[in-house]
Amino acid sequence: MVEASSFKGRDVVSMLDFNREEIDFILDKASEMKPLAERGSDLLKGRILATLFFEPSTRTRLSFEAAMHRLGGEVIGFAQPGVSSIAKGESFEDTIRTVENYADVIVVRHPEEDSAVRAARVAEIPVINAGSGPWEHPTQALLDLHTIREAKGRIDGLNIALVGDLLYGRTVHSLAFALANYDVKLYLVSPPQLKMRRDVLEKVEGRLNYVETGDLKSILPELDVLYVTRVQKERFPRPEDYEAVKDAYRIDREMLRDAREDLIVMHPLPRVTEIATDVDETPHAWYFRQVRHGLYVRMALLALVLGAL
Amino acid sequence: MVEASSFKGRDVVSMLDFNREEIDFILDKASEMKPLAERGSDLLKGRILATLFFEPSTRTRLSFEAAMHRLGGEVIGFAQPGVSSIAKGESFEDTIRTVENYADVIVVRHPEEDSAVRAARVAEIPVINAGSGPWEHPTQALLDLHTIREAKGRIDGLNIALVGDLLYGRTVHSLAFALANYDVKLYLVSPPQLKMRRDVLEKVEGRLNYVETGDLKSILPELDVLYVTRVQKERFPRPEDYEAVKDAYRIDREMLRDAREDLIVMHPLPRVTEIATDVDETPHAWYFRQVRHGLYVRMALLALVLGAL
Amino acid sequence: MVEASSFKGRDVVSMLDFNREEIDFILDKASEMKPLAERGSDLLKGRILATLFFEPSTRTRLSFEAAMHRLGGEVIGFAQPGVSSIAKGESFEDTIRTVENYADVIVVRHPEEDSAVRAARVAEIPVINAGSGPWEHPTQALLDLHTIREAKGRIDGLNIALVGDLLYGRTVHSLAFALANYDVKLYLVSPPQLKMRRDVLEKVEGRLNYVETGDLKSILPELDVLYVTRVQKERFPRPEDYEAVKDAYRIDREMLRDAREDLIVMHPLPRVTEIATDVDETPHAWYFRQVRHGLYVRMALLALVLGAL
Repeated sequence: MVEASSFKGRDVVSMLDFNREEIDFILDKASEMKPLAERGSDLLKGRILATLFFEPSTRTRLSFEAAMHRLGGEVIGFAQPGVSSIAKGESFEDTIRTVENYADVIVVRHPEEDSAVRAARVAEIPVINAGSGPWEHPTQALLDLHTIREAKGRIDGLNIALVGDLLYGRTVHSLAFALANYDVKLYLVSPPQLKMRRDVLEKVEGRLNYVETGDLKSILPELDVLYVTRVQKERFPRPEDYEAVKDAYRIDREMLRDAREDLIVMHPLPRVTEIATDVDETPHAWYFRQVRHGLYVRMALLALVLGAL
Repeated sequence: MVEASSFKGRDVVSMLDFNREEIDFILDKASEMKPLAERGSDLLKGRILATLFFEPSTRTRLSFEAAMHRLGGEVIGFAQPGVSSIAKGESFEDTIRTVENYADVIVVRHPEEDSAVRAARVAEIPVINAGSGPWEHPTQALLDLHTIREAKGRIDGLNIALVGDLLYGRTVHSLAFALANYDVKLYLVSPPQLKMRRDVLEKVEGRLNYVETGDLKSILPELDVLYVTRVQKERFPRPEDYEAVKDAYRIDREMLRDAREDLIVMHPLPRVTEIATDVDETPHAWYFRQVRHGLYVRMALLALVLGAL
Repeated sequence: MVEASSFKGRDVVSMLDFNREEIDFILDKASEMKPLAERGSDLLKGRILATLFFEPSTRTRLSFEAAMHRLGGEVIGFAQPGVSSIAKGESFEDTIRTVENYADVIVVRHPEEDSAVRAARVAEIPVINAGSGPWEHPTQALLDLHTIREAKGRIDGLNIALVGDLLYGRTVHSLAFALANYDVKLYLVSPPQLKMRRDVLEKVEGRLNYVETGDLKSILPELDVLYVTRVQKERFPRPEDYEAVKDAYRIDREMLRDAREDLIVMHPLPRVTEIATDVDETPHAWYFRQVRHGLYVRMALLALVLGAL
């Protein structure tokens, strides 16, 4: 039996560290946060969150900060490394050792893949990974699951496609780890250059029912969830390679005619051109509603690791 | 009869959207904020303001943030676009749609003239315009009126000069819109290259008693209010044009000998050289006191649009 | 007899402005802050701190912000001048005059030596110096003393070495001023190019028992406190001069074999290579614990100058 107290003081570094029972528990707690997200609360009054963003972010940083404030807590931190002592040559570990003296929990985004692990190793207070280079983004995976559960009432039994850049996309790595705990059929849809990282698949081998394909159109009619990610031009050595694939995965209203009526389209955002704005007003569009679920999930995580539930 | 409840959920995008009765109501509420600005309050406890500044600002951003804190609320946001997902190519509308999930009210400054209108159209929560390119800055106009009313006891019947860059100066555009609701004589004093925008005048034609002139000295003795703005060098194609006009509108103590004893000198700040520092210690100088009125006005606006009054 | 009320409204600009009785009083109050630093308090509820950082900082800025939040207060400000109106040519004094309308206390870091004095002269609310160019950093000196007192139970009678860059290091200037109030033996250890500033020594002449030397090894066995600072490459005109001295003052575990068992090693941080990481796990290492004392001292100072104790 999972209990709230078992999360107290815990780091949230990788989706691989959480089993199904724990994930479901977090999602349940996130749902309970909805009324507090409306009217605020004093659950974390007097507590301080440090948000250390070594890479730019709108959504994740503001989402964590709003989550902390809705629970009555306060926030310190930086939104870019230039204003910190990193510029003076301080090591990442020294920065973490310093900041943990000022806060009760640290949220960190950093371009290096092992950053969150290293921060958690050094800090005595809980560390939450808000994006570790191209490797993981576990709180995004949790909010994705929470959104799916809200839209579909369940996760088991769904046909889910992850589309776009599966090689560098940290959100789809964490989501694949998370979905390995559920009975889903997962389609991994990408151009050949951006196929799902092999070490991600190795870690879920035997636990995840997946198919790799480059052909979105043929599987589209079967899908319950279409999870789109950005394909970045700079990932391609030759511009013509980018031009060749970018339109293959561009979702628009026309294309969605072949989809199930209750298909939901998700996206970790920011979206550039990979979902046409004509989809925004359709009932398929869940990517902006998805944002709200990030607030619930992060409220739950902060309250759990600070032992307030 | 204007009532506080009629402001709940409302956007503050343009001074053209408010009639005299509404403006007077906001100014009255601003005056009531003075004691709360001293000792704080819990009026907006649990509420969150998002400040989205796509252009640099000291005054306006800190003023809104202080206003929110004095009312017991919290703040999230960014002070420059570089730390946000704009850098990743996200549209302005998508950023707004995201952020409205985290906050109860949005304050936005953006270099494009239609930015605030677009934000208000997209967001379901109230949007307050903190500067829309060279077009408008309505909360500055409200604090200007509040300052005038405090200094003079009234707005009607005053002789007011707006001096400097009336073409690109967003504060004077909003102020002209606001003053069209009052019985004032308005002098628009500028070099020919920086005359008041024609579309500003068109919108108040017939409602505003104004005179355009390049000659400050001759009208100075008649003025109750001298509102100075910065003339920016970069507005002039030829440096010599700038040199020719910049001193014509430079206010110093010597020049103010010709002014009424109770003339007040105002400035939206930042001031560079257009008001000499020897004016600072005279009773004419109201530009630093003016800053304080921004706090009152923004407290009132936040409380009104959030339905807390 | 020093009383809390005598600090109300006072500026904290230079360690030279405080006598021993006052310093001891502040340190006592800092010790009383420890429980509030754990669980928070409402001592400064409704009050606002403005942090104006014209130079990058992690520790000092976040430390002040955490201190304010632990006391129930709020924070506004900027972490770099680029986002403020400085970029538009506003004078430092005008920025201070503006910001004091929004806050109850100002913390300022600025590259110019007289910045804090100038800010205090202009502002009617208290100003706390968080680093005035290469000149002073008084709150760092106070946290250093608090750390020493905690580690050693006293300050009088100790042998203390300040090592590294004593010419440009603002923390060691303020610390020398502070230590002039105590009965200590002070070793000033530096390469000849980076000897203690003459005007610092002049100000404490006759009140401070000090020895200047370039030889750390020979005095090491006598020391109770070894205070290390960063020697910055850019201070040396020729790279070979830097290479020649940087290792002379590099502290590692091997070197500390000659030290007293209860020697404490301190550093204002950020540390680059001047203390090897193999020292971190020894009982000598106090530089990370030192960070925590900054929180206590800044909580005490904020509460004192705001008249809340």
